[in-house]
Amino acid sequence: MTTTATRAPAPTTASPLRREDADGVALLVLDRPGARNALSDAMLAALADTLAAIAQDRSVRAVMLAAEGPAFCAGHDLKEMTAHRADPDRGRAYFADLLGRCATVMQAIVALPQPAIAAVNGIATAAGCQLVASCDLAIAADDARFGTPGVSIGLFCSTPMVALSRAVAAKHAMEMLLTGDLIGAEEALRFGLVNRLVPAGQERAEALALARRIAEKSAVAIRYGKAAFYKQRELPLAEAYHYAAEVMTENMLARDAEEGIGAFVAKRPPVWER
Amino acid sequence: MTTTATRAPAPTTASPLRREDADGVALLVLDRPGARNALSDAMLAALADTLAAIAQDRSVRAVMLAAEGPAFCAGHDLKEMTAHRADPDRGRAYFADLLGRCATVMQAIVALPQPAIAAVNGIATAAGCQLVASCDLAIAADDARFGTPGVSIGLFCSTPMVALSRAVAAKHAMEMLLTGDLIGAEEALRFGLVNRLVPAGQERAEALALARRIAEKSAVAIRYGKAAFYKQRELPLAEAYHYAAEVMTENMLARDAEEGIGAFVAKRPPVWER
Amino acid sequence: MTTTATRAPAPTTASPLRREDADGVALLVLDRPGARNALSDAMLAALADTLAAIAQDRSVRAVMLAAEGPAFCAGHDLKEMTAHRADPDRGRAYFADLLGRCATVMQAIVALPQPAIAAVNGIATAAGCQLVASCDLAIAADDARFGTPGVSIGLFCSTPMVALSRAVAAKHAMEMLLTGDLIGAEEALRFGLVNRLVPAGQERAEALALARRIAEKSAVAIRYGKAAFYKQRELPLAEAYHYAAEVMTENMLARDAEEGIGAFVAKRPPVWER
Repeated sequence: MTTTATRAPAPTTASPLRREDADGVALLVLDRPGARNALSDAMLAALADTLAAIAQDRSVRAVMLAAEGPAFCAGHDLKEMTAHRADPDRGRAYFADLLGRCATVMQAIVALPQPAIAAVNGIATAAGCQLVASCDLAIAADDARFGTPGVSIGLFCSTPMVALSRAVAAKHAMEMLLTGDLIGAEEALRFGLVNRLVPAGQERAEALALARRIAEKSAVAIRYGKAAFYKQRELPLAEAYHYAAEVMTENMLARDAEEGIGAFVAKRPPVWER
Repeated sequence: MTTTATRAPAPTTASPLRREDADGVALLVLDRPGARNALSDAMLAALADTLAAIAQDRSVRAVMLAAEGPAFCAGHDLKEMTAHRADPDRGRAYFADLLGRCATVMQAIVALPQPAIAAVNGIATAAGCQLVASCDLAIAADDARFGTPGVSIGLFCSTPMVALSRAVAAKHAMEMLLTGDLIGAEEALRFGLVNRLVPAGQERAEALALARRIAEKSAVAIRYGKAAFYKQRELPLAEAYHYAAEVMTENMLARDAEEGIGAFVAKRPPVWER
Repeated sequence: MTTTATRAPAPTTASPLRREDADGVALLVLDRPGARNALSDAMLAALADTLAAIAQDRSVRAVMLAAEGPAFCAGHDLKEMTAHRADPDRGRAYFADLLGRCATVMQAIVALPQPAIAAVNGIATAAGCQLVASCDLAIAADDARFGTPGVSIGLFCSTPMVALSRAVAAKHAMEMLLTGDLIGAEEALRFGLVNRLVPAGQERAEALALARRIAEKSAVAIRYGKAAFYKQRELPLAEAYHYAAEVMTENMLARDAEEGIGAFVAKRPPVWER
């Protein structure tokens, strides 16, 4: 593994988010373990900036999201939020802006041209669970736990449920949302919130192996396909087919499809566009 | 357990629906075991009235739906329906009205500000299965069975499938709808139609324990969240986030969130708005 | 089993699709095993014609889709597609037309008034996997495998994902689409892509038994119900209920519902409309 230079701008203060690129995979590491990697203003800003940079970076072919410390991500930073109750508007403007910024980050993951894979250790709760639900794929440690505990502190996990309810069945989502209980990794697997479990400590290696395999595919094809996935699923069936057929026609005319199909027929490895 | 007075008006004839309130949980019991708790005109009227009352009743923080006798609910009352074939319009107006009233009851469960938990024993078929699918959560006896058998009597379970198809995967719903076969509790669990199984006879106790735990949460937060759950899932992703962020901002400004977050930070139990 | 005459017109060249009707079940067999039953222009035309004929054929009460040889269906015919790269427009018009024809066939399965059951052996990949996802029900051999491998040849399975993403959870679909890996039958069962597994070699008999049982139900009720299923699931809840109640009222007034309910009450077998 050749680790190329980290592309994130040099932080003036230590960044809460670390970026390490290697072999076409951008590894993003939530790195405020002492704050259980809460989505503070600084963390959200770092995520927004980094995701925006990656979206434009053709050298990145897959994105991984991992975390330092015992918690993957515990959601919003309650101290920061509570401090804004002292604002003249009791925090309304700040809260609305915060939730908007958070939703923008989640949608930036969905909108990334590259696949995003979560490698989940420890607990992923509230907006941290939303991060997992928002990634295209997720690998979890077998002792990872997931939850939307807002209901227990009087603040229902309403924005997390946007992602959660698009990832799992209604009664599974509602059980998490209404009880606030953490569910174990096995249950998260059964619900479809994560794709695979591995022994704790191996989740990052497993996700990286998966990311590398995907990074070897055609980035052009994935760019067409991922965007189309999320768009078509919101359309009625006939419109979805009409749209997907247009996308696939464009994909077929792209150089990578010609190369890939040619290589397949000739039984040689394809050489993708960079 | 302190059982407070039943709030339903004293019935002139024996009501097919019993209501018992305790500890913030309204327990509704379908109580026409001899008719397998069919959704007769009287049963639908009792459900509609009771749900309407509960929706306005701030003392109720969770709702349970259970049933007396060997069947949870066998769906519509075929005898009542058949009698209306003698109407001048062959029953058209009655059938349309009946299905409309039934759909209104199902949507009243979804629209309740309180969570609704089904405790399922025996069989839940046709509109009885729809009741289970319409509740937010469901606990089932391990010998409970579920089905949409209308196809076997020439009357496809078209309104039940509205709820069923929003609860389980398409091929699971279609298997139930096209074969009319009953599925067992294990399969219902696998499909996501119910949340948990318990040994037969314990389903009501288990559901009650769950209801009480939810009743200890902030009713304000749940009111915001439950309504938002069902609304946002029908919106495209960006609109869903915009809407959910607005809801969560309002929730954040409500007293219960301030209390809940404060209690959490201070490590003391919260005292919710009543 | 009395096998009635095959209804497909006598082929001038050997048809890639065989139709055999018996006992109200139309069995369609993809029959180009040497080409892994690829959805060539000829195969798509045969499917389109046959499905159109079946849609009008009241003697058919259930449809089965099976395949000869070691592969159920390997998707599009890459050789045919590649040949059109020599077209003056590099194949654009052909590709767009091809994908449109393929989407029309998939939607014709969904729009069939009769239930469609796939009996899957061997591999079902790309548009072959889409065929399985598009059928109402699917029985698979326990050694069947499923995949959307387009990503590996630079051509993302964008039209297959329209059907796939409506059959399974998002992360399951994305795992198949982004890795291109084949999944086994057990995983397909867990994802909800198929309804049941049987020992290899028994999938056609099992699907036929299921088709026959469904063929004994009211075709009128199924026609109402199947169309309503796919329409209502694209509507918001209130509209879905309004629509489904209308459909069910019409169904209630049809002769088969009167007969079926009468027979049920009288405990005699119903005699359905033919």
